[in-house]
Amino acid sequence: MFNEDEAREKLAQLARIFAMQGMLGLFGHVSVYNPEKKRLFITPGMGSDKGQLRPEDMVPCDLDGKPQSSGRPPVEWPIHTALHAARADALAVAHLHPPHATLFTIAKREFQPVTLQGTLFSDGVPLYREAQLVTTPERGRALVKIIGDKRAALLRAHGTVVVGRNLTEVLYAALVLEDDAKKTLQAAALGEVDPLSLDQARAFNAEMDFERRAERAWNYFSSVEARWDRQPGTGRVELFP
Amino acid sequence: MFNEDEAREKLAQLARIFAMQGMLGLFGHVSVYNPEKKRLFITPGMGSDKGQLRPEDMVPCDLDGKPQSSGRPPVEWPIHTALHAARADALAVAHLHPPHATLFTIAKREFQPVTLQGTLFSDGVPLYREAQLVTTPERGRALVKIIGDKRAALLRAHGTVVVGRNLTEVLYAALVLEDDAKKTLQAAALGEVDPLSLDQARAFNAEMDFERRAERAWNYFSSVEARWDRQPGTGRVELFP
Amino acid sequence: MFNEDEAREKLAQLARIFAMQGMLGLFGHVSVYNPEKKRLFITPGMGSDKGQLRPEDMVPCDLDGKPQSSGRPPVEWPIHTALHAARADALAVAHLHPPHATLFTIAKREFQPVTLQGTLFSDGVPLYREAQLVTTPERGRALVKIIGDKRAALLRAHGTVVVGRNLTEVLYAALVLEDDAKKTLQAAALGEVDPLSLDQARAFNAEMDFERRAERAWNYFSSVEARWDRQPGTGRVELFP
Amino acid sequence: MFNEDEAREKLAQLARIFAMQGMLGLFGHVSVYNPEKKRLFITPGMGSDKGQLRPEDMVPCDLDGKPQSSGRPPVEWPIHTALHAARADALAVAHLHPPHATLFTIAKREFQPVTLQGTLFSDGVPLYREAQLVTTPERGRALVKIIGDKRAALLRAHGTVVVGRNLTEVLYAALVLEDDAKKTLQAAALGEVDPLSLDQARAFNAEMDFERRAERAWNYFSSVEARWDRQPGTGRVELFP
Repeated sequence: MFNEDEAREKLAQLARIFAMQGMLGLFGHVSVYNPEKKRLFITPGMGSDKGQLRPEDMVPCDLDGKPQSSGRPPVEWPIHTALHAARADALAVAHLHPPHATLFTIAKREFQPVTLQGTLFSDGVPLYREAQLVTTPERGRALVKIIGDKRAALLRAHGTVVVGRNLTEVLYAALVLEDDAKKTLQAAALGEVDPLSLDQARAFNAEMDFERRAERAWNYFSSVEARWDRQPGTGRVELFP
Repeated sequence: MFNEDEAREKLAQLARIFAMQGMLGLFGHVSVYNPEKKRLFITPGMGSDKGQLRPEDMVPCDLDGKPQSSGRPPVEWPIHTALHAARADALAVAHLHPPHATLFTIAKREFQPVTLQGTLFSDGVPLYREAQLVTTPERGRALVKIIGDKRAALLRAHGTVVVGRNLTEVLYAALVLEDDAKKTLQAAALGEVDPLSLDQARAFNAEMDFERRAERAWNYFSSVEARWDRQPGTGRVELFP
Repeated sequence: MFNEDEAREKLAQLARIFAMQGMLGLFGHVSVYNPEKKRLFITPGMGSDKGQLRPEDMVPCDLDGKPQSSGRPPVEWPIHTALHAARADALAVAHLHPPHATLFTIAKREFQPVTLQGTLFSDGVPLYREAQLVTTPERGRALVKIIGDKRAALLRAHGTVVVGRNLTEVLYAALVLEDDAKKTLQAAALGEVDPLSLDQARAFNAEMDFERRAERAWNYFSSVEARWDRQPGTGRVELFP
Repeated sequence: MFNEDEAREKLAQLARIFAMQGMLGLFGHVSVYNPEKKRLFITPGMGSDKGQLRPEDMVPCDLDGKPQSSGRPPVEWPIHTALHAARADALAVAHLHPPHATLFTIAKREFQPVTLQGTLFSDGVPLYREAQLVTTPERGRALVKIIGDKRAALLRAHGTVVVGRNLTEVLYAALVLEDDAKKTLQAAALGEVDPLSLDQARAFNAEMDFERRAERAWNYFSSVEARWDRQPGTGRVELFP
């Protein structure tokens, strides 16, 4: 069922897409989980250039963060192992440093979606309040508690975590969260923003085929990434510009 | 009179220009109408890469959104059919996700032009308030009512609609609306903005040759698009930077 | 003394630099004056692509805006002729649409320099208040009155005018004005800004060799322009980033 | 111990990286000190294109700013000589014009870190209040007094100074300061920001291996710089995007 070659390839691809989008930086990481073997693949830590990652660079780990090959996982591997172990719907996990969503980890303001697509996050994006990296299993478990059954969490003064049933979903959700955060920030310069209510969110999402949208976004961003010249700033594109 | 080959070519070109400008994203669309045959051409939905569209990708449809060939129209085709059917001066229609004009669909602030060119929109840009996509003929008709005889409408938490007598006009109007929205947002950081009055708008527009301006903008943006290397961020240029 | 070939070449070069910087757009223009012959060279109007201009595209005009060759001057030629005729120190004139300085023509806030270099404009940047293009000699003369002996003026809801003794000076002054405007806008998000006093400006400028600075900036921006690939967004660089 | 060839090479590389990042502009400079010979290498002044600098362009100087070869140091050499002479831990010094950190030299607001990485600057970034360039040894000594034992200082209406034990440290510290300044500015649009306390900073830094982080950042930015096409805007990348 879980095809390791495919997982490695798609994971490397997603890391390159996030790098192109300027959402990973030097220190972000993405993982995908094989629940049968209780094993994950994760992008390497150690300052590697995420825009150049190949399938063979992906690091297989067990749930204790022990690498099963020569690579080394990033120091914040407990974000991934804790979420993969705790939630059956967290088969893919990204830890990102997105330029706009991260601002909600700095300003005293709760995230509330302001766009139709953003209603994906209408049940909230909880904040992990500790001013520290998630470098131990204990901290990983604390994060799991805070995120609950939500799609994403904010890490104080630091970045975000986005989970999904697969890498396609994680890409779409992360792009939508970043877009909504950016629009909130910019619209605030015009005056008070008008967030969407939970009822509006439900009505909208009842009509939306989230999976199909996510697949199309994957196809589109993959095709842009494939022809990207690896120059920062020349590939970045927006889902809802 | 209505040349189908020309219409397909110009429509694809406009979609590529809007893609270059970052105003379409994955889900925007543009159409042009042939009132004699009551038939429109529309850019395809389904997550296609709008910066790569060719004339043969354009989808011919009737006013019920039924494709007349193998392509598929975007799900929000009723925006286009409703406007084409209702207004003789809406022979071209764009549904965009422009980064700045969209912010007026989020913030509680009415759009008012702040630049000379922006007076094109001095009679207002109405807001379609429903938090939903325009996916049915009923919603299309509701939008037609709201937009009235105006050049553009805002779609709550979503994007914009711009209409014109032809594709050249739609390009110019959409660029001006986006530019004016951007300048309003940025100028607000300096203090209160000073919108132009209806009298000033009238005096200015009495002197301006709108059509000639629009033609020159079309020529300029076409020439930039023609040499665009298809890397996001490397073609985008501004009418009034 | 006034070398026409050199003037054409340098004028075209400055227009290309301003285009690279995103300060001209489709409708800006630059001129240089020969006081002996009472004749100016001006960049062509008519929506030409300013990033591609060659010396032979420059339009020679008399002070009534009459072209002395086959080209056509921009409709706002009276900005240039009025200033060249009235001020011996206005041998070069640029009419720009710079993204940030233009915001001071929209917001109700007087321009005051906030950077050391910006003290070049410590005696103020007056505002031409009419909401119209400067398309007649009368309006040109009104602008001359308003600008007085200053280096620059703001045109309501529209753009800027920068004058200098030569094109090198105009480049430097225009870059500094734009940089200072941008920094004011951005710093305002952090709190109240702290403009430099007239005394501080005088002390700073007494130490500065403005001409040498301007020459170095010219050399630097020329060299960047010479290797520019003509893709919008790939050449733009900042004097004081 | 101090390898002159290596120092020249690494200094030129750092200047090119800062140029790529848009943090130097035409007038910034970087130096590295050899305490045994009381001699520094500094990037040349005179408006050179910092993105093209080679090791042989580096200017050797004594502590009186006298060049030991044919090159010429920048006019603000006293920033470097004063710091190298006064502090054993200031073996590398950068004077930058970074777009966001510079805003803290304009707005009346003290710098306080808002990100985990930014706690590097938790003991403050003092402001040199004089509205002048640091062109004399006296001004250099005044700056030394103001900066004390801190990692960085702000220069009123002008730019920043960042010191480190080596060039690797200076790169990392300068990138972090700029990132934190940018995030403060942007987050302020969302509401009040929540700076990290001194206790939080200490706890975080006790866990962090600053040197290793700095080395990885150096490797990453070097590799991006090595493949940079020298077009402004096409190389710039962020540490924590």
